[in-house]
Amino acid sequence: MTDTATPRRRTRGGGGAARRAERTAVSVETAKFIERNIPNFEVLTEEALQIIETNAETVLAEIGVNFVDNPYALNLWREAGAEIDGERVRIPRGLARELCKTAPSMITQHARNPERTVEIGGNNLVLAPVYGPPFVRDAEGGRRYATMEDFNKFVKLGYMSKWLHHSGGTVCEPTDVPVNKRHLDMLYAHMSLSDKPFMGSVTEPSRAQDSVDMCEILFGGLEGRTVMTSLININSPMTFDSVMMGALEVYARANQACIISPFIVGGAMAPVSIAGTLTQVLAEVLAGVAYSQLVRKGAPVICGAFVTSIDMNSGAPTFGTPEASHVTYGVGQLVRRLGLPYRSAGAFCGSKLPDAQAAYESANSLNMGLMSGVNFMLHSCGWLEGGLVSSFEKFVMDADQLGVLHHFAKGVSMDDNAQAMGAMREVGPGGHYLGCEHTQNNFKTAFWRSDVFDYKPFETWADEGERDTVSLATARVTKMLGDYRQPHLDPSIDEALRAYVREKKDSMPDAFS
Amino acid sequence: MTDTATPRRRTRGGGGAARRAERTAVSVETAKFIERNIPNFEVLTEEALQIIETNAETVLAEIGVNFVDNPYALNLWREAGAEIDGERVRIPRGLARELCKTAPSMITQHARNPERTVEIGGNNLVLAPVYGPPFVRDAEGGRRYATMEDFNKFVKLGYMSKWLHHSGGTVCEPTDVPVNKRHLDMLYAHMSLSDKPFMGSVTEPSRAQDSVDMCEILFGGLEGRTVMTSLININSPMTFDSVMMGALEVYARANQACIISPFIVGGAMAPVSIAGTLTQVLAEVLAGVAYSQLVRKGAPVICGAFVTSIDMNSGAPTFGTPEASHVTYGVGQLVRRLGLPYRSAGAFCGSKLPDAQAAYESANSLNMGLMSGVNFMLHSCGWLEGGLVSSFEKFVMDADQLGVLHHFAKGVSMDDNAQAMGAMREVGPGGHYLGCEHTQNNFKTAFWRSDVFDYKPFETWADEGERDTVSLATARVTKMLGDYRQPHLDPSIDEALRAYVREKKDSMPDAFS
Repeated sequence: MTDTATPRRRTRGGGGAARRAERTAVSVETAKFIERNIPNFEVLTEEALQIIETNAETVLAEIGVNFVDNPYALNLWREAGAEIDGERVRIPRGLARELCKTAPSMITQHARNPERTVEIGGNNLVLAPVYGPPFVRDAEGGRRYATMEDFNKFVKLGYMSKWLHHSGGTVCEPTDVPVNKRHLDMLYAHMSLSDKPFMGSVTEPSRAQDSVDMCEILFGGLEGRTVMTSLININSPMTFDSVMMGALEVYARANQACIISPFIVGGAMAPVSIAGTLTQVLAEVLAGVAYSQLVRKGAPVICGAFVTSIDMNSGAPTFGTPEASHVTYGVGQLVRRLGLPYRSAGAFCGSKLPDAQAAYESANSLNMGLMSGVNFMLHSCGWLEGGLVSSFEKFVMDADQLGVLHHFAKGVSMDDNAQAMGAMREVGPGGHYLGCEHTQNNFKTAFWRSDVFDYKPFETWADEGERDTVSLATARVTKMLGDYRQPHLDPSIDEALRAYVREKKDSMPDAFS
Repeated sequence: MTDTATPRRRTRGGGGAARRAERTAVSVETAKFIERNIPNFEVLTEEALQIIETNAETVLAEIGVNFVDNPYALNLWREAGAEIDGERVRIPRGLARELCKTAPSMITQHARNPERTVEIGGNNLVLAPVYGPPFVRDAEGGRRYATMEDFNKFVKLGYMSKWLHHSGGTVCEPTDVPVNKRHLDMLYAHMSLSDKPFMGSVTEPSRAQDSVDMCEILFGGLEGRTVMTSLININSPMTFDSVMMGALEVYARANQACIISPFIVGGAMAPVSIAGTLTQVLAEVLAGVAYSQLVRKGAPVICGAFVTSIDMNSGAPTFGTPEASHVTYGVGQLVRRLGLPYRSAGAFCGSKLPDAQAAYESANSLNMGLMSGVNFMLHSCGWLEGGLVSSFEKFVMDADQLGVLHHFAKGVSMDDNAQAMGAMREVGPGGHYLGCEHTQNNFKTAFWRSDVFDYKPFETWADEGERDTVSLATARVTKMLGDYRQPHLDPSIDEALRAYVREKKDSMPDAFS
């Protein structure tokens, strides 16, 4: 079983191009997206699933959802047979689920490097980095507002991370660039500093359109291909605001994928119980996906669920908790019954530092993400402090742990070599396997190995300064950024992208809110 | 659903006894052992299970196992129908599995406080602390050889840990007590400083007998009750040494439970492949359990599997790896088909410090332990540096995470209150749930909350010195040891135990190897 897509070698005719290709041909290994060969873990019984599905239809039919400041949406819903009362949309039982049927079960998101194209759905898991934090943190500089320089560094780290399939979107908020222009710089960074797939802007419909337009340039015409996966949050409970829906409308019409995702802090935006949260999440997802299909039948969408619990003492969101796991597993089951791709989980934590708390919480979340059947995992590395901070050290620590998910998902090989009967006969009682033929033939690929953690003898480790994981991660960040070489991008495309960004920026004054 | 056994209130007649009871009646809450209401995760198909079972019988029949320096065992095996060749025992197909049938599927291990008695088997999970490290570590004192004072502290911490059901055994090696006498002090510590169930000594058959004899005193006569669970390691590959088997023989005859446990570093003591390791583990467990039943039909045993992978660069054992997870899940399936209790997993890590590496690795291991159907989890807290070190901080960090396992294992309630339809109707689109009636009625028990982690606002956390998890854990260790009060023990029993220890110690010279 191979799990690594060989980097494409770019050889081009012409002296300058060839020399440039040589200079830029860095051996950056990226694993293929995970194709699970293990079952999904299911926490809900058939009876529980049916109760939740029935209750979600009751929520849609009797309570309804709000589409705010969006007469266009209300009109589409009315024509589809929903009952409209002001901005409230009550959806008759079964209608939303019926509308969802035209959404595809599998999405091919093309990358500009075709070997990094991903398939989102089925048994697959695509891993993308942290999204959204206004702050960054590293061991040297502490916690500070994120800048475009930080953003670029995270894109480079993502490009260099073997187990990360996706470049993500707002890996941190570049707060030094005007709000109405930063999406342009962010898109250009993903397009030029990486060749992995990425996400589009959602903060205004016009910025979604910029994202589509820049992709037209990058890909030399989209021709219906899906090249972005963008994050459309539902304003839970049961509210669809016009900015997010406007972005969704742009993307749906352009056949670009949207993650339609309730944003749940349990006890605040959803009931304090698991079953109640699952019901609300399903109702919201059904309404959102159905709406995407009203905008354009066949628009690619991913059913999302961002779920945390809350610490009722402090009001802080909490991560890696058993209740968040219950919801994530449960939504996975519900979404699979819809036959649609599923987004959830991530390396979530509430800790302020990339310490043991961060790692316990993140490992709990990553494990449940794999085993709940998630198809697209945003925030799979770099998330710190409840999503307020993108951490450089945690980015490489988490990205390393993603290798655990890859190897676990392979399942257990049962071929003759794996059965190893010859090895047991050779070694026998009281022997050891270190030198036997079977071990020699298999040891290189048998066991996953961390590229960050300390495996040294105690004395060596002590002599080298008793470094903890953060210290090892700091060194790895420095090394990865030092080793980084930009992937080749056709200069005419690069210039066209730069011109687009320049012209857009020149067309409007800076805005910082 | 209640998950907490109310502490027994001891009220006794008589002025002195009543006053003493008052002084010692500390409110130490201990959760009931976990009764899983979630499915087990299964990584092997039916076909794979059958291949492994067939191969394990082949190993037993054709390769065989060694019972070393143990003519008694060889004789029992001969009488049972095995083929004996020197110390090699070849067991005809099916014989070992047939012999295993007389071992009980569920073991009641009595504690001196009956409310802390545990049921090992079925859907249950009993959590016990780290076992065996010669070193201890804490933030203040660093890494050092363990002493009896350390040992007592760990027993106290275990007694004070809500999510820990079991006091364990060698929570660290008290290296300041002679090797031939330390088991007496360790047993007395578990018996007097805690009222949770504990483990017996296995380092010599005579020490196993001391363990039984001291339990006769503690419990006022055992009358066939099982009151110890002791760790009998198999010297993998396929070797049963006379010391461990001698201890097993003592315990089996006294109806005390043994964990019969291959000790596997994959690639060294077992084949480098998962399927091969599973085959060897099953063969070893079958032979060991069968032997326990030859010693005494009906002897209570737990099928163990201590499994790590190896870093082929450094030769170090590695923890929290996907390969260890594959084996742990697989052995769980195999053991359930034997109908016997299963011991595996723990808060395993290779890290030298209780840092992020330790926590990622431990969380991976703890999650797989819960979901693989483990019934008895040794090492569930405190393990550091590949088992060389018992860490005070990690003990309380891990013990806190055991709460996650308890809450996740409850599964999802689907009663009317949990369905929360009234709450969704009350709050509606755009509202929030913080103040609604359903939240008010349920918030206290809805979400698990860490007792160690930081959930404070950033500013508060910064003002308080930016403490990391280790620092918070250090404070918790100090507080728990400060709050500790010894559970009441009948003074006559206490004096009898002390006399036993004193007499045994006086009966032989000190030995330090």
